[in-house]
Amino acid sequence: MEYIASAKNEHIKSAKKLTVKKYQKETGFYLLEGWHLVQEALTAGQTPRRIYATQKFLDKIELRPFYEQTSEISEAVAKHLSETETPQGIFAVMPLVLGSLPKTLAGQFLLLDQIQDPGNVGTLVRTADAAGVKTIVFGAGTADPYNPKVLRAMQGSQFHVNIVSAPLPPLVAQLQAAKIPVYGTELNVNAKPYLAVEPAPQFALIVGNEGNGMSQELLAATDTNLYIPIKGQAESLNVAVAAAVVLFHLTA
Amino acid sequence: MEYIASAKNEHIKSAKKLTVKKYQKETGFYLLEGWHLVQEALTAGQTPRRIYATQKFLDKIELRPFYEQTSEISEAVAKHLSETETPQGIFAVMPLVLGSLPKTLAGQFLLLDQIQDPGNVGTLVRTADAAGVKTIVFGAGTADPYNPKVLRAMQGSQFHVNIVSAPLPPLVAQLQAAKIPVYGTELNVNAKPYLAVEPAPQFALIVGNEGNGMSQELLAATDTNLYIPIKGQAESLNVAVAAAVVLFHLTA
Repeated sequence: MEYIASAKNEHIKSAKKLTVKKYQKETGFYLLEGWHLVQEALTAGQTPRRIYATQKFLDKIELRPFYEQTSEISEAVAKHLSETETPQGIFAVMPLVLGSLPKTLAGQFLLLDQIQDPGNVGTLVRTADAAGVKTIVFGAGTADPYNPKVLRAMQGSQFHVNIVSAPLPPLVAQLQAAKIPVYGTELNVNAKPYLAVEPAPQFALIVGNEGNGMSQELLAATDTNLYIPIKGQAESLNVAVAAAVVLFHLTA
Repeated sequence: MEYIASAKNEHIKSAKKLTVKKYQKETGFYLLEGWHLVQEALTAGQTPRRIYATQKFLDKIELRPFYEQTSEISEAVAKHLSETETPQGIFAVMPLVLGSLPKTLAGQFLLLDQIQDPGNVGTLVRTADAAGVKTIVFGAGTADPYNPKVLRAMQGSQFHVNIVSAPLPPLVAQLQAAKIPVYGTELNVNAKPYLAVEPAPQFALIVGNEGNGMSQELLAATDTNLYIPIKGQAESLNVAVAAAVVLFHLTA
């Protein structure tokens, strides 16, 4: 097995680039970091193109089938590749998978409208996964699903749900044509408290930008807007928190 | 009005130190950043010791009563004082207020057991505030309430709720003596799905460390453990998201 001790190694330089959207797009691969996430990828049946691991991971039984693709790296190289302050020491070059929408729309959807903070985006995907929502659509202006901070906050949910990148306005029209109720999340005169809507096997929930909320175009198109009544003095909730409260009610 | 153009100015050096716990403790003050949060502090009736603001804030009507305490700063000084990448340009030196528990315990409580991530801690306080929970107790090992990242995620909720720093095990005993049900959050054989517990005017909810959960000592002391049934394949939820789902149910 190759041992790489220098961050200037060409393979390591290429791997590091796979944390950046431009190079991810060019190559169709991204860099996944951390033992838990690598395990999730393997459990999901995905095949890593390369694995870079420090000595302590080399005995892991899960990595045996990928011996040929694995290189040992020094702690210094792990630190160089890592996006965290305390790197665990394992990285995998994985195929970048983006899902697509089925021809016949059915089930539960979460639509992300210009969610900018990668931590929020990742937490939204993880939360939707936990609530059983199977399709998450990244609209324009939303952080990229393979951004390293999104990956960290998703905690492997990209292996469990269908992540789709698509413009939201035409999708909302398609959902409505399929008789799937589309809920916005914005407090306006016609908005209903979220508990006034019954849990249902089919719905689409749209959440909007952290500061500015949903785009006017989408807001005009939604069937109903839901809001969470605030009992204290906080002006609003974090977007991932708000989505969680509504999603766990709608999927209860 | 004094104009400060240098980050080496003694007042600015002192103000910058007030983002650090050690100096906050020594002086009893902390540095609050951003116009929204400064407004919240003033609305709450608190008196800033000093305000440092760039030119564009100097005409704000809300700052007039504090003209004597205000200094104008350059954009460069604002950048130096700021903990964010895009500083707004206003900072206030505020008294560090820590609440205490009343002799007679009553109402709704959120207890934070070793929550390390400052973003999570701040979001938990903001969420509890929104749900109407009035007392939030920071147990041992929890990020400091006046950490700059906690302040940013709290979004001013420190001005709305009672933030107390106290060891949790004796408090749990006191809550139980006051007949307030204490709910843990840990999936074990005796845990109940959170929807099996009715909303109630009195309860205490304990949330535990992001990786390790609640401490064994607290876990042994809780009346009931609540869990959120997971429908998808996510292994767990972010701690602030989980607390939100349970709190909005318990306070519904």
